[in-house]
Amino acid sequence: MSPWKAANPLDLVCSIDTPALVLDLNAFERNMQRMVDALKGHAVRLRAHSKSHKCPEIARRQVALGAVGICCQKVSEAAVFVDAGIADVLVTNQIVGAPKLRHLADLARRARIGVLVDDAQHVEALAEVASAQMVTVDVYVEVDVGGRRCGVMPGPDAAGLARRITDHPLLRFAGLQCYHGPAQHKRSPAERSQEIVLASEAARQTRALIEADGIQVERITGAGTGTFLLERDSGVFNEIQAGSYIFMDRDYCDNERAPQDVQFENSLFIRTAVLSRTQPTRAVLDAGLKASSVDSGMPLVWRRPELSYVKAADDHGILEVPEGASLALGDVLMLVPGHCDPTVNLYDEIVCIRGAQVEAVWPISARGALI
Amino acid sequence: MSPWKAANPLDLVCSIDTPALVLDLNAFERNMQRMVDALKGHAVRLRAHSKSHKCPEIARRQVALGAVGICCQKVSEAAVFVDAGIADVLVTNQIVGAPKLRHLADLARRARIGVLVDDAQHVEALAEVASAQMVTVDVYVEVDVGGRRCGVMPGPDAAGLARRITDHPLLRFAGLQCYHGPAQHKRSPAERSQEIVLASEAARQTRALIEADGIQVERITGAGTGTFLLERDSGVFNEIQAGSYIFMDRDYCDNERAPQDVQFENSLFIRTAVLSRTQPTRAVLDAGLKASSVDSGMPLVWRRPELSYVKAADDHGILEVPEGASLALGDVLMLVPGHCDPTVNLYDEIVCIRGAQVEAVWPISARGALI
Repeated sequence: MSPWKAANPLDLVCSIDTPALVLDLNAFERNMQRMVDALKGHAVRLRAHSKSHKCPEIARRQVALGAVGICCQKVSEAAVFVDAGIADVLVTNQIVGAPKLRHLADLARRARIGVLVDDAQHVEALAEVASAQMVTVDVYVEVDVGGRRCGVMPGPDAAGLARRITDHPLLRFAGLQCYHGPAQHKRSPAERSQEIVLASEAARQTRALIEADGIQVERITGAGTGTFLLERDSGVFNEIQAGSYIFMDRDYCDNERAPQDVQFENSLFIRTAVLSRTQPTRAVLDAGLKASSVDSGMPLVWRRPELSYVKAADDHGILEVPEGASLALGDVLMLVPGHCDPTVNLYDEIVCIRGAQVEAVWPISARGALI
Repeated sequence: MSPWKAANPLDLVCSIDTPALVLDLNAFERNMQRMVDALKGHAVRLRAHSKSHKCPEIARRQVALGAVGICCQKVSEAAVFVDAGIADVLVTNQIVGAPKLRHLADLARRARIGVLVDDAQHVEALAEVASAQMVTVDVYVEVDVGGRRCGVMPGPDAAGLARRITDHPLLRFAGLQCYHGPAQHKRSPAERSQEIVLASEAARQTRALIEADGIQVERITGAGTGTFLLERDSGVFNEIQAGSYIFMDRDYCDNERAPQDVQFENSLFIRTAVLSRTQPTRAVLDAGLKASSVDSGMPLVWRRPELSYVKAADDHGILEVPEGASLALGDVLMLVPGHCDPTVNLYDEIVCIRGAQVEAVWPISARGALI
């Protein structure tokens, strides 16, 4: 691990060095339980998205609470979680290139491994490596249900790919990946609902077409923290891939909530200190964009609504401070990151606190796992 | 190091796995030499900013070519470079908190260490730790010459701080930090020039005030890749803190160049592959915002001007592709990152290529050094 450590277990919270990535365990555990409660009694299982946390300690807790396993975006992430004992890992991505495919097949000896395809070439390459290494892989057809990223269009193209997969004895057609990314951050509940109604209908029709061809569609998987109740209630989806629900972030907090939406709490923070305070209306923090990713906007200052984080440089955060506000050099603040996933990816460790004490320090083992 | 490796020395470039951070050594070495040439014959020395590269191998090459040492933003970064044998390190930042100050003083036993102040409290805290550990530290007064971030205003406040520093026998008043960050990316040469004329005048007046008080101002340091010729020719600055010049990035390339400006080349790239190609006008790359920081805008596709990287998700990059353009699943592209510093900070290693071969793989040892 790194030669810079923000804290050790049993330290007091007030002694955590800055900037540090901090997890409030009570809030985190409540969020985990809220997801369990939200899916209870529904024929919908959770496959927690590990791209948000990249942390085996968290994945193990999600599985212990009933998640079927995890999903991730990269083969190297999958390797970290298989090494940590997670038995069911879905790479929610297309994989190209022989080294990655060989690595994926290696993992399939030790865990149930799934992967996405949206092109016949993906299927052929997977079939080749599965045959060479004599392993079975779960293969999902990704359907573009509105995300306009990867995926074939709903309908015959998807059905054609499903048929191709079933042609290969070591490839197991596992179902459809129907994730709608942009819908997660549509601000109004009505917009989110509209998108997921369309996505669900596209998934339903595609499933019908494949089943009419005599191929069973066991799983329709997708959804995220912003929309998962809609997929849960769609009658089509039977697996949820939420990730951010454990942490939340400023971008998710900017969504307007529907009355029935689950009230996940902010559990993830950047602990930061004021390092310069030369102007009455400005303070400079030691957490800039290398400490809190600004791809989805600036972080929020936790429980100090009068303070606005207005600009991030590499290693400096600029706060606008109302004249006369109490904020001194060396004062410590907590930030809610703009976007949790890439923020977590900036740190080696997550400092887990309960009340006034550091309870644990968890390695972010898949930090930087890009390949 | 990480269990995911993009390449090893002697590999062919075509076999580098993706996404990977790639340095074109020929272009990099030309950039280094261009900086040497630009400062030759001027009474201005280079203190290379290591926050851009975080890589001891690069710092050693900068020093070998005449840089007096490096600057960095964090005490933990300084520790990495002192460990690597860099003898003169300036932390171009204010440092608050006892653990960091103790660490800084520890480093001052092994190297010449400088640090900035913009408040009497910084001076007192440094004096205390220097006395406790019996070390000498170079202390620079940071002057806000237009950056509106850290720093006291030019004039008497700066002079007062300089006087305070000289009151402490173990603190050595080393000069003024006069860095103007926002000027680096003013798009027109006229705007950049206007800002640095003002900054230089502020530095000159502040120096005069301090020297009128009988205190020598040995060093006026600052500047970046976007403006350093202006500081070089100011007659005031005698040290340059450029960092990005070795790599360049899309944001710097967006600056309009003055005729005399040094033509640094892009040497830093993200190697990425097409993982999905379902639509004629869209391709999806395996390099998203965890592979190329988008804080300063999207990356550029190198030598494929017809392709536009229009959107970054965590692990996906969306390309707009003109109808009929040649781009297939699995094709490899090189991206010029939007902003080099935070992009480098996403990787464990930099794959150094020369021609068709990988010549070296350098650890980014200060990656994640936030404290």
